[in-house]
Amino acid sequence: MKKILVANRGEIALRIMRSAREMGIATVAVYSEADRAMPFVQYADEAVCIGPAPSNQSYLVMDKIIGAARQTGADAIHPGYGFLSENARFAKAVQDAGLIFIGPSPAAIEVMGSKLAAKQAAQQFGVPMVPGTETPLRSIEEAREVVKKTGFPILIKASAGGGGKGMRVVNAPEELEEQVRLAKSEAMSAFGDDAVFIEKYVGSPRHIEIQILGDQHGNLVYLFERECSIQRRHQKLIEEAPSSCLTPAIREAMGQCALNVARACNYYGAGTVEFLVDEHLQFYFLEMNTRLQVEHPVTEMITGLDLVKEQIRVARGEKLTFSQADLKINGHAIELRICAEDPANNFLPDTGTLTTYVRPQGYGIRVDDGYEQGMEIPIYYDPMIAKLIAWGADREEARERLLRAIGEYHIKGIRTTLPFGRWALQQPAFINGAFDTNFIGKYFTPQSLDQKDPAAAKAAAILAVQVWQEEQRRIRQQPVNQQPKLWKNRKLLR
Amino acid sequence: MKKILVANRGEIALRIMRSAREMGIATVAVYSEADRAMPFVQYADEAVCIGPAPSNQSYLVMDKIIGAARQTGADAIHPGYGFLSENARFAKAVQDAGLIFIGPSPAAIEVMGSKLAAKQAAQQFGVPMVPGTETPLRSIEEAREVVKKTGFPILIKASAGGGGKGMRVVNAPEELEEQVRLAKSEAMSAFGDDAVFIEKYVGSPRHIEIQILGDQHGNLVYLFERECSIQRRHQKLIEEAPSSCLTPAIREAMGQCALNVARACNYYGAGTVEFLVDEHLQFYFLEMNTRLQVEHPVTEMITGLDLVKEQIRVARGEKLTFSQADLKINGHAIELRICAEDPANNFLPDTGTLTTYVRPQGYGIRVDDGYEQGMEIPIYYDPMIAKLIAWGADREEARERLLRAIGEYHIKGIRTTLPFGRWALQQPAFINGAFDTNFIGKYFTPQSLDQKDPAAAKAAAILAVQVWQEEQRRIRQQPVNQQPKLWKNRKLLR
Repeated sequence: MKKILVANRGEIALRIMRSAREMGIATVAVYSEADRAMPFVQYADEAVCIGPAPSNQSYLVMDKIIGAARQTGADAIHPGYGFLSENARFAKAVQDAGLIFIGPSPAAIEVMGSKLAAKQAAQQFGVPMVPGTETPLRSIEEAREVVKKTGFPILIKASAGGGGKGMRVVNAPEELEEQVRLAKSEAMSAFGDDAVFIEKYVGSPRHIEIQILGDQHGNLVYLFERECSIQRRHQKLIEEAPSSCLTPAIREAMGQCALNVARACNYYGAGTVEFLVDEHLQFYFLEMNTRLQVEHPVTEMITGLDLVKEQIRVARGEKLTFSQADLKINGHAIELRICAEDPANNFLPDTGTLTTYVRPQGYGIRVDDGYEQGMEIPIYYDPMIAKLIAWGADREEARERLLRAIGEYHIKGIRTTLPFGRWALQQPAFINGAFDTNFIGKYFTPQSLDQKDPAAAKAAAILAVQVWQEEQRRIRQQPVNQQPKLWKNRKLLR
Repeated sequence: MKKILVANRGEIALRIMRSAREMGIATVAVYSEADRAMPFVQYADEAVCIGPAPSNQSYLVMDKIIGAARQTGADAIHPGYGFLSENARFAKAVQDAGLIFIGPSPAAIEVMGSKLAAKQAAQQFGVPMVPGTETPLRSIEEAREVVKKTGFPILIKASAGGGGKGMRVVNAPEELEEQVRLAKSEAMSAFGDDAVFIEKYVGSPRHIEIQILGDQHGNLVYLFERECSIQRRHQKLIEEAPSSCLTPAIREAMGQCALNVARACNYYGAGTVEFLVDEHLQFYFLEMNTRLQVEHPVTEMITGLDLVKEQIRVARGEKLTFSQADLKINGHAIELRICAEDPANNFLPDTGTLTTYVRPQGYGIRVDDGYEQGMEIPIYYDPMIAKLIAWGADREEARERLLRAIGEYHIKGIRTTLPFGRWALQQPAFINGAFDTNFIGKYFTPQSLDQKDPAAAKAAAILAVQVWQEEQRRIRQQPVNQQPKLWKNRKLLR
């Protein structure tokens, strides 16, 4: 492999090219007309313009990208994330053109791209799913049978549903019949189809994912977890590794589970298996992402691996040079996504020019970004400007370092999620690790960003740190099988 | 400890303040009139101007610094490196003013500040010194006796000497009498004193130092070594950790030795014990630096510790939270000092304005610097602009990453040592670790910077990497006691 074409833009294109350059591999950028001046275009050894700004005229046009590879003599294509990265047809087209696709096989992408197929494949390997019915509910008696297994609360979901319509939470047996009736009638009027399912309701879940890596010779390892529960409308905002709530035993169980999901589709390359984790630390398979994730740096920081280099090595047919036993968690890493969004105004996307753009520096800080001072944030693409990642010897050091770095980050001309990050990292619930995917809904209001009493906030934060440390001590002294139900019992300070 | 005054400037002042801020400690900068606009002054919570640019009117004036601490209510002073950092009187004056000195005891600074006292103290703990006479030579018979112990070659040194005068290398017994006579007569005419010593001549040494850390409760650990052999006139240019030539057994022996030097002066805080290491991996105590070193980041990157935070904790009277057994080397780090010097013109200091100053970014890269674009490099101080540090899972990855980062570093307006770094990192002798303190004298000419045939250079570098890897494999297979004489036997490629 002598030359890699990166079929992406912004920070991830730059990040991939950096690893390629360290490996002595030349790089080709493809770019839209709107991205002409972007750093990733400057950084590449060669660059090919592939069309106008809208993605469906440039970054999503397979022929143009493969044509650019042919034109420049690239022998491999890295798809990054988003765009064509999980498109099995694209992976196939790349291979059919005689090029190496830096990612899993088209077949693996295809299986995991269908939620139903993915679940069926995973189920054969004993991967836990959210329990419930697998076919439409036929009677109220069947509902009662299912609930015996799942327990309450349950969720009734319309088969044809979406957007929350026909969806009902049932908390007790006496509500069951009435709620099924209501859900069916709602589903009928909304979708013209009254078929409904039952699923156990996971009310305050954490979103935790396992990074896996496999070669083309059957070797598979998991690179521990990433905690991604700080989300807003399913968009992750803060990610960390390791999670503050997993025990070593559950970490290993989830890791083995993720490897089983990978085995279910003969996976190779880097991939991520996503789970919901409930308050008892029961975990349920959600889906598998067959590509590099935005938040992969936190895994790199705690393992010392370069995931892009590993992807390239696997694509070249090399074997993994390490086994599961060689992998250890080293310290803690937290990532804040810095997006051109206004947290004070419902996270509305903001556009404009980066009139000031000064990055933080120093020990333990990494910035993966795709812009420079003076540049405009184009309206056509993802609003993410940068990822700010802090590593620390432990979680508390990573948190303090990230806060320090947020203070050093100077962005003007565009509103960003930096103030949200500063707020979130100082919340007692974040500090002592007692949060779930409802974190923002539960604690955040636009007024949260107006710090009224810094001294009181600081005192609350210090107390939260003490509670967290005390809790950690207590957990370590408990036998492993008594450790679950950790984070829900933790004393919440607000 | 609520507020720390940093009695230093530039990158190290900023680096210290970053750690203090992460610990929730306020910071005070003191600055000269020339440094008014420097980032470290902006970064501090408070800043006090202490006089005109020349150091002896500002950064070296103890009263002004202690006065600034009193004025701002600081309760501790961090001296950084250089300036007053190894001045026992300053440490004492800080303590007498009721403030905490973030460093070792004044007594330890004093002992280690005198080479003779340091050697005498260390010798009682069995620390190896370069063998030779300890008092002026009385007769040629005594010389013959000494040489029986040291072996050839030896160095005859004038007692009153300096600058190489009265210094003679003797390679064989038959030269001894004549050379002693010449040295004595040279010493007499140069210094009016014909007293001479004999010392074993360490001809092609490596400069390797051990970082140590102790608390005020008698706990002491060593944080492995830093290789600092790439020097020019005793100024270090490239440092790395770990060294490419030490075996685990010799690393441990040197570590224990460094701890003995520390014990010899009841040391606490961070300190560095410097050694000369000869081609047989025999090591000899040189001196101890009783402060933070410029090159401390490479140790931080491979241990995960924050040395400034550890210094602060020790100064607060806290115990170390880890023991020697907890410490492991994680990967490899290399640092390049970026100085305002022109490597093509005998490393002559350069001055001017940083018209362009763009730092590299991304995984594994750390920049510790003290300037911003548009700033002038003042003529009054050390010409170092920045330290560029790369971490990698192994030495080769660290080297490739540092090269990648050098390529991303854009500095205009001032000549720097960046091109020297690019050259040095690609030398076969550097790549395969077969170098000593003569590296620059042996390989570097100003013409080295004109890369004539990049393809040939690349091929040579690839070959060197292969030789190095092969050598490493071979070494690992050998019994430990046959491992010395490593780097001198290594095939040199040019």
